[in-house]
Amino acid sequence: MALGERGGWDKSESRYCGVETDFNDDMPHLLSFNLSSGGFDFVVASLMDPNYRPSLMEKDIGGGSHVLPFAGSDLVLSPSQWSSHVVGKISSWIDLDSEDEILRTDSETTLKQEISWASHLSLQACLLPSPKGASCANYARCVNQILQSLNNMQLWLRIPLVKNDDDTTDFIPSGDSWELWNSFRLLCEHHSQLSVALDVLSSLPSANSLGRWLGEPVRAAIIHTDSFLTNARGYPCLSRRHQKLITGFLNHSIQVVISGKLNHGVPSVSLDSALDHTGTNVESSQRHSLRPYLDYIAYLYQRMDPLPEQERFELSYRDFLQSPLQGHNPLFHIISDEFCTIEFSNYYLSFQPLMDNLEAQTYETFEKDSVKYIQYQRAIGNALVDRVPDEEASSLTTVLMVVGAGRGPLVRASLQAAEETGRKLKIYAVEKNPNAVVTLHVSELLGSFGDNELSPECLDGAQRFLKQDGISIPSSYTSFIQPVTASKLHNDVIPCLCAQVSPLEAISFSSKCALALQVKSHKDVVHFETAYVVKVHSVARLAPCEPVFTFTHPNFSTKKSNQRYKKLRFEIPSDTGSAMVHGFAGYFDAMLYKDVHLGIEPSTATPNMFSCCASSSVCFVESYFDTGLQIPAWFAIFFPLRTPVCIRPGSPLEVHFWRCCGSTKVWYEWCVASPNPSPVHNSNGRSYWVGL
Amino acid sequence: MALGERGGWDKSESRYCGVETDFNDDMPHLLSFNLSSGGFDFVVASLMDPNYRPSLMEKDIGGGSHVLPFAGSDLVLSPSQWSSHVVGKISSWIDLDSEDEILRTDSETTLKQEISWASHLSLQACLLPSPKGASCANYARCVNQILQSLNNMQLWLRIPLVKNDDDTTDFIPSGDSWELWNSFRLLCEHHSQLSVALDVLSSLPSANSLGRWLGEPVRAAIIHTDSFLTNARGYPCLSRRHQKLITGFLNHSIQVVISGKLNHGVPSVSLDSALDHTGTNVESSQRHSLRPYLDYIAYLYQRMDPLPEQERFELSYRDFLQSPLQGHNPLFHIISDEFCTIEFSNYYLSFQPLMDNLEAQTYETFEKDSVKYIQYQRAIGNALVDRVPDEEASSLTTVLMVVGAGRGPLVRASLQAAEETGRKLKIYAVEKNPNAVVTLHVSELLGSFGDNELSPECLDGAQRFLKQDGISIPSSYTSFIQPVTASKLHNDVIPCLCAQVSPLEAISFSSKCALALQVKSHKDVVHFETAYVVKVHSVARLAPCEPVFTFTHPNFSTKKSNQRYKKLRFEIPSDTGSAMVHGFAGYFDAMLYKDVHLGIEPSTATPNMFSCCASSSVCFVESYFDTGLQIPAWFAIFFPLRTPVCIRPGSPLEVHFWRCCGSTKVWYEWCVASPNPSPVHNSNGRSYWVGL
Repeated sequence: MALGERGGWDKSESRYCGVETDFNDDMPHLLSFNLSSGGFDFVVASLMDPNYRPSLMEKDIGGGSHVLPFAGSDLVLSPSQWSSHVVGKISSWIDLDSEDEILRTDSETTLKQEISWASHLSLQACLLPSPKGASCANYARCVNQILQSLNNMQLWLRIPLVKNDDDTTDFIPSGDSWELWNSFRLLCEHHSQLSVALDVLSSLPSANSLGRWLGEPVRAAIIHTDSFLTNARGYPCLSRRHQKLITGFLNHSIQVVISGKLNHGVPSVSLDSALDHTGTNVESSQRHSLRPYLDYIAYLYQRMDPLPEQERFELSYRDFLQSPLQGHNPLFHIISDEFCTIEFSNYYLSFQPLMDNLEAQTYETFEKDSVKYIQYQRAIGNALVDRVPDEEASSLTTVLMVVGAGRGPLVRASLQAAEETGRKLKIYAVEKNPNAVVTLHVSELLGSFGDNELSPECLDGAQRFLKQDGISIPSSYTSFIQPVTASKLHNDVIPCLCAQVSPLEAISFSSKCALALQVKSHKDVVHFETAYVVKVHSVARLAPCEPVFTFTHPNFSTKKSNQRYKKLRFEIPSDTGSAMVHGFAGYFDAMLYKDVHLGIEPSTATPNMFSCCASSSVCFVESYFDTGLQIPAWFAIFFPLRTPVCIRPGSPLEVHFWRCCGSTKVWYEWCVASPNPSPVHNSNGRSYWVGL
Repeated sequence: MALGERGGWDKSESRYCGVETDFNDDMPHLLSFNLSSGGFDFVVASLMDPNYRPSLMEKDIGGGSHVLPFAGSDLVLSPSQWSSHVVGKISSWIDLDSEDEILRTDSETTLKQEISWASHLSLQACLLPSPKGASCANYARCVNQILQSLNNMQLWLRIPLVKNDDDTTDFIPSGDSWELWNSFRLLCEHHSQLSVALDVLSSLPSANSLGRWLGEPVRAAIIHTDSFLTNARGYPCLSRRHQKLITGFLNHSIQVVISGKLNHGVPSVSLDSALDHTGTNVESSQRHSLRPYLDYIAYLYQRMDPLPEQERFELSYRDFLQSPLQGHNPLFHIISDEFCTIEFSNYYLSFQPLMDNLEAQTYETFEKDSVKYIQYQRAIGNALVDRVPDEEASSLTTVLMVVGAGRGPLVRASLQAAEETGRKLKIYAVEKNPNAVVTLHVSELLGSFGDNELSPECLDGAQRFLKQDGISIPSSYTSFIQPVTASKLHNDVIPCLCAQVSPLEAISFSSKCALALQVKSHKDVVHFETAYVVKVHSVARLAPCEPVFTFTHPNFSTKKSNQRYKKLRFEIPSDTGSAMVHGFAGYFDAMLYKDVHLGIEPSTATPNMFSCCASSSVCFVESYFDTGLQIPAWFAIFFPLRTPVCIRPGSPLEVHFWRCCGSTKVWYEWCVASPNPSPVHNSNGRSYWVGL
């Protein structure tokens, strides 16, 4: 039940709230107190007596039992209680990078014993204490060893949410705890079972700095009672910045954990019961001292705006990589020599889809996106009025060719535009072999990256049917990219996930995903040199978009080429700190006709359709803490990097993109040139291309 | 014939000298003039008229022939003349990173046409002009596309040998041309057919900076006539630093190419023939104007010290990766419960080798290393004299156990030590089940990295046979590592090369290697997480060695462990510039008895045995320009990095090494922690281990 119901919210992923407890060897009591009486969903509980040290135990060799001081036998709770309600808290004294060799060895032994015990209990996750110093290599080496043969348990590395711009803290030389996490996960090679639990403290870093974490695998936010303020009625509440952060976390399925002691004089709680929040000496009938904090989080959750219908529809697509539509299938044949034309007068005719692999359901997804067709209708209407003056409305017929007409929504939109403007229209919906003279054409060939579905080549091919004074809708389109942190997408670039699943299987596929993710990704080159269509959600957008390629139609130049080359530079804001770039999110913007545009580039995205990205490009990161997101029906495209690149403020990221055209195919190549050059990805289109 | 004969030099790899020429469409004349008359071995010749521009040609479409202006038809020379005597020089005007799109497109077209032509001619190599500016991404993208489907032709990227510490040159912002090369090869993903041709100019960078290039795939050194001085008799000669550089290059099989015009008033050459060095207007019977430069290079070559016998014997092992001896085979069984002992009185008995996989030839290789046995003999002699005073020499018998005796050379050395010192000795050579009381033991279990062949575990096991006052020879040993540039080793970490070839097949294997290298290495994790035994030759040692692990014997401590963990920091000298670390060269040093040591760590390597590394550790790079190298019979060990790491002066390289012990195996793990963390290599010994 957790944080309660929220109107229109995603039912499949409930939001839970846990509580951090101290060691208690009476686990059933600990659980019943915190769950039944406290109302929490789970406990983050120590598994072993904190006084235990392996090196001290060895002195007793030969005398007495060797039972390890675990918190209770595995039989004190049912298997489902263990796995659903207990997150193991690894002893916080461990320090694998200590100069003291005995402490180091004790720490390694204890860590392995506790994880082994937690695995035996089938816990879903264990919380690893934060590294004690700036160096974490031995800790990471040991965790990495554990990860190699771990069951499906997650390891949450505890990281304080700290970034001091000026000074350095004791244990984070750069003053930025993200650096600590970054070192640790690089040493563990981006292992998908290693994730983050962020300690939310009373002061917060800048919004840009916080934004980085949304692309990282953050599983839990541990909120300390110290971080709460007190409201007029004596109850705990959070600052506006904290509220925004927490609702952002909830929107990204990050669990909340309350930690610490009661710090607020909540009227109804008596002082003595409040003092011991672990509940060891408190009757379970008593109200839990941390209940007011849970209540406040539940209040924040329930207050969140309901998701709009489109967003709910697309929930299951979030961060789900799809091979680009028609990936390796030729689109160009639709304007080959065997054209045939279906002619519309003023009635609608259902006809065979142009692109052979799309299922009926996919078209429905596309056609849901009514804003798109409204924009096309506006563009066509404006063009009709421009070409045909009112006095000739009844005599002049405009001929329209719909290139890539799908099931006909553009045809419908065109007919409506004709009706609205009172202009006469003859439409050719191109399937094969159109042989009429064409004066105006409308294309639905745009992909997420504008030109990635061969629209330049298709429209060039159709251009021979266009009169010299004809109009192309769209008249131009530009692709855009921006660097993103996207650890989930990076980890999901796995052959078995992407190659065999069509986008519409996604909903029922979540359970298969979980299995597939356990099979350690063999990061072969082909899958890291492919661009994916994806509804990006858990990503951090590190810099504003830059334009990449532009195509203009019609283009009657004799020397035209659809090859393109663009060098781009991105600067991350100085208060972000360093960040990891897993790849590039790509978008497009199309000028349909004069001022009517359509696009998904975040800073100019078509209103209503793309409100999530409608904030200014400067504070683009903040916008991701908004909760009422709407997502475009055209998802973004994601260009991965084979090896993620770490960037630092003041060192621009230089990126090169090529659109290459061969005799039989079109493909992209891309690379990072600075700060450190990457290999050129997808050389000769060896991994990913679109056939002509 | 080339540079002539050199005493004791490697006959298999002749040293050749070429000459750079301008465009000449009379290729047979060009060849005969430069080879027959000039004495050069090959020409570096333009393949296409430098005035050709594809964009200008297109204007002629429809009019006239489309034959490209290549230098002569493929029939003007025989196939073997083309492939043996011509290196293709790609038009130097090309600039793929120009801001001018027409120039950029022309450049790409021309580059692809010329390479295609050179492939058709089966040339062995083409010389690519140096990138024109700081940015080379588009050039590299195009070359990378070409490399994907190239036959076995090499592409030599021309790079000026420039490193200015203070100012920056026009086209290399950092002032260091190595950076340009580094960007290019990273973009081309360390392709094995992409190599370097260095332009040697009149001023040279520092020795440390030059040293970096020995680990890079340098195939040619182009020496400009401007770089020569004039000697008292008016002939060209080189400065001492240039001489050292060139002999260093010759020692690393780098071809020399003479470029430029006659700059020296050599008495016997008439001025008019000297002016046109390409020979276009000069009779082939005339003496070639650049002949004096060739003669000087030949003189330098012939003057080089002859290679010592051991070095000649080991030539075929240079940079040849070998799986560590006994890699996955248990050594420990030699001191298991089934020991048997072969007893020696004062005669030598041939017996079965201890380590089951070693062929007889391998033992002969080992036993060639007489300095090693002299050191053991000294250590044993000293120990015998220490333990047995002169007056008891005839009454006291010392018992010696040889653990890991091989075919008996240590037994022989021991007997000789006994004879020399006049002490009585009883020797047990351990094969299986020794059951005698042992007072002194000698081990031959040391690997290239000291403890990598389980010597700690073997000697621990044998220790129960050692009296409390017994002596272990060696008494201790320490492993060492240093970061190296080693592009050849990195490219050779290929499954098919390493897994199936025993070290002694190496000599006949060179032709197979060439084939295997064409199969693009699929850099799987296992092979990059394995340490290799290798006679390192074409490597750049970037910083002095640091000690890693030390083991001392006997060790009667009850809590002893053979696990080790070491954090190391390396600083590269500030005048080196940046450099690429492909991995770590590992060595050992063993204290045999008191001051008698044996080892291959470069700064302390045993004299005579290891003179190549006997220079001080500070100017370790310079020493690699010495020509009279001798190589240890114990080769170094090489720990690769899965992804090479670029390091810069002032940013220390922090490296962590672990020796891990499980119940059935022993293994190393390693990682880079700074400047950028790498994955921990060989987690849990998943790729490389030694079984117990």
